Amino acid sequence: MSSTPRLALLADRELAYLDRGFRTLLPLGHDLEGHLLGVLGDALAHPGSLGRAQLAFAVLCELGMPKDKARELAVAIEYFHTASLLFDDLPAMDDARERRGRPCPHVVHGEAATMLGALGLITQAYHLLWGILSDLPAERRARASELVAASLGVAGTLDGQARDLHFATARTGRGRLERTRQVERVAEGKTVPLIRLALVLPALVGGADEAELAALERLSSAWGLAYQGLDDCKDGLLDAREAGKSTARDGLLGRPNLPAAAGWTGAVRRVTRRLGQSRTALAELVRQRNGWSRLLPLQAHLESELAALRSRARALAA
Amino acid sequence: MSSTPRLALLADRELAYLDRGFRTLLPLGHDLEGHLLGVLGDALAHPGSLGRAQLAFAVLCELGMPKDKARELAVAIEYFHTASLLFDDLPAMDDARERRGRPCPHVVHGEAATMLGALGLITQAYHLLWGILSDLPAERRARASELVAASLGVAGTLDGQARDLHFATARTGRGRLERTRQVERVAEGKTVPLIRLALVLPALVGGADEAELAALERLSSAWGLAYQGLDDCKDGLLDAREAGKSTARDGLLGRPNLPAAAGWTGAVRRVTRRLGQSRTALAELVRQRNGWSRLLPLQAHLESELAALRSRARALAA
Repeated sequence: MSSTPRLALLADRELAYLDRGFRTLLPLGHDLEGHLLGVLGDALAHPGSLGRAQLAFAVLCELGMPKDKARELAVAIEYFHTASLLFDDLPAMDDARERRGRPCPHVVHGEAATMLGALGLITQAYHLLWGILSDLPAERRARASELVAASLGVAGTLDGQARDLHFATARTGRGRLERTRQVERVAEGKTVPLIRLALVLPALVGGADEAELAALERLSSAWGLAYQGLDDCKDGLLDAREAGKSTARDGLLGRPNLPAAAGWTGAVRRVTRRLGQSRTALAELVRQRNGWSRLLPLQAHLESELAALRSRARALAA
Repeated sequence: MSSTPRLALLADRELAYLDRGFRTLLPLGHDLEGHLLGVLGDALAHPGSLGRAQLAFAVLCELGMPKDKARELAVAIEYFHTASLLFDDLPAMDDARERRGRPCPHVVHGEAATMLGALGLITQAYHLLWGILSDLPAERRARASELVAASLGVAGTLDGQARDLHFATARTGRGRLERTRQVERVAEGKTVPLIRLALVLPALVGGADEAELAALERLSSAWGLAYQGLDDCKDGLLDAREAGKSTARDGLLGRPNLPAAAGWTGAVRRVTRRLGQSRTALAELVRQRNGWSRLLPLQAHLESELAALRSRARALAA
């Protein structure tokens, strides 16, 4: 799967513009405490694929939002995601040592500074978000705030992450189907909300109509579940060098994992089904507005990951 | 100091109204993951003195904000504070075992769930805050957002907390005066921003004029430094039972501590000076608007803590 091409929803020039925004929209004074500066310096210097920011930026540009505003909202969403990675990698959570091919900030700068740095990203994300939402009509502003709270709050990704962490002790499912459903329930809580934030929030802010919002909602759910399923498969198949982060963690930590619950064939079938649902949602969107075809590269990206997974799983079985 | 009366800026009825708000403005679904539900259930069931919420509520009522809106903003500020306590008590930070006379949530429900619970409080605090700010004119909304980001962000309380944690290795001051200044610099970063959030943000939201905002700014700084100085003294003088939280931590952890830097006499003198500055700021405020006299009980509360500290320190020296 390491041969899968890098996701490029945007033209190089746009991606570079977004990348610069990620690095600069949280200004770091030189007099910041050293450990905190270390964590944030590291995090901002390694933006990763900017997948969620690319999605948000593409949606906002499609809806005619000025580039600078679109970038602020896209980077805010990416900061929320980056903060969640900093927390997830801590010893009390996934106890990961590597991310994006480098040692995790908590390994280098300590756990406390990592938490404070993550909170700094969150604070700035809200500040950026607020700046954008402030220009909206009051009713849309309230709806956007509800969506943010529902996605990032206790009933959203926080509950999903808690279920992920405590899966081993909470697992009660006996049959394969029941276990598989429980794994997908965790992914719905943990992974889908941040994809929804990257797709539906920008659409709401940019003024998409109700039919589009509903289709983007379905797309978020299908993509989120497909993405998590593929990530679960990679956790079992790739070594850390290929994945750029600690792998083989799920089994070790008793975490929900799609192939562990559904078997390799079942996992491939599930991901295939989710990618069918996302293809349907995308087709609907493109019928509504031709410009939504700019989202197709992510569908293609996930399908090529699935194809690579299929052949890898076959090779392992052979 | 355990005999110091509980802070009561508000009438009993108002305090009870605020207390109910704290317990209910973050609704917890019964299907939340158990550890996360445990942390949040504990945190919401033990509001503490609601000091920051009382301040914010008093300011907002003085400025004529409807009670329900005033409560939402006051509780939002208290949720930020509660989240900061959950983080501060973690093993990677202060490694405290007790708070408000009970075991810390991380001791009972685990570190991961405690971090997720704290993030849940922060998410809801932003949601509540947003609801209030949404009704303001755009210019005041932008200014309020700046104040929140400056207080809670990397240049505010996060940098202060990082300096607090890494004080032992960063300490370069040789003379007593220099060490004392460094200790106060940490308190300015760590403690003052949340007091400012409880006083200046509500005043800004409620439409106080520039002279009032400036005086409240000075009051925040003086009260914040006096409060932290008194807290440092208690850390050395009280046992855990009296303080309701783990004590004697600063020396053990190499943290900044006013009496350790300035000596007991110096610490008492510093706190006395800060309480003089806050008295001056309050007098100015009361000249501007008679209703600001409702803030006087906090001044009296801090002065009675100082008096108790004086006699305790004298008894120890005798």
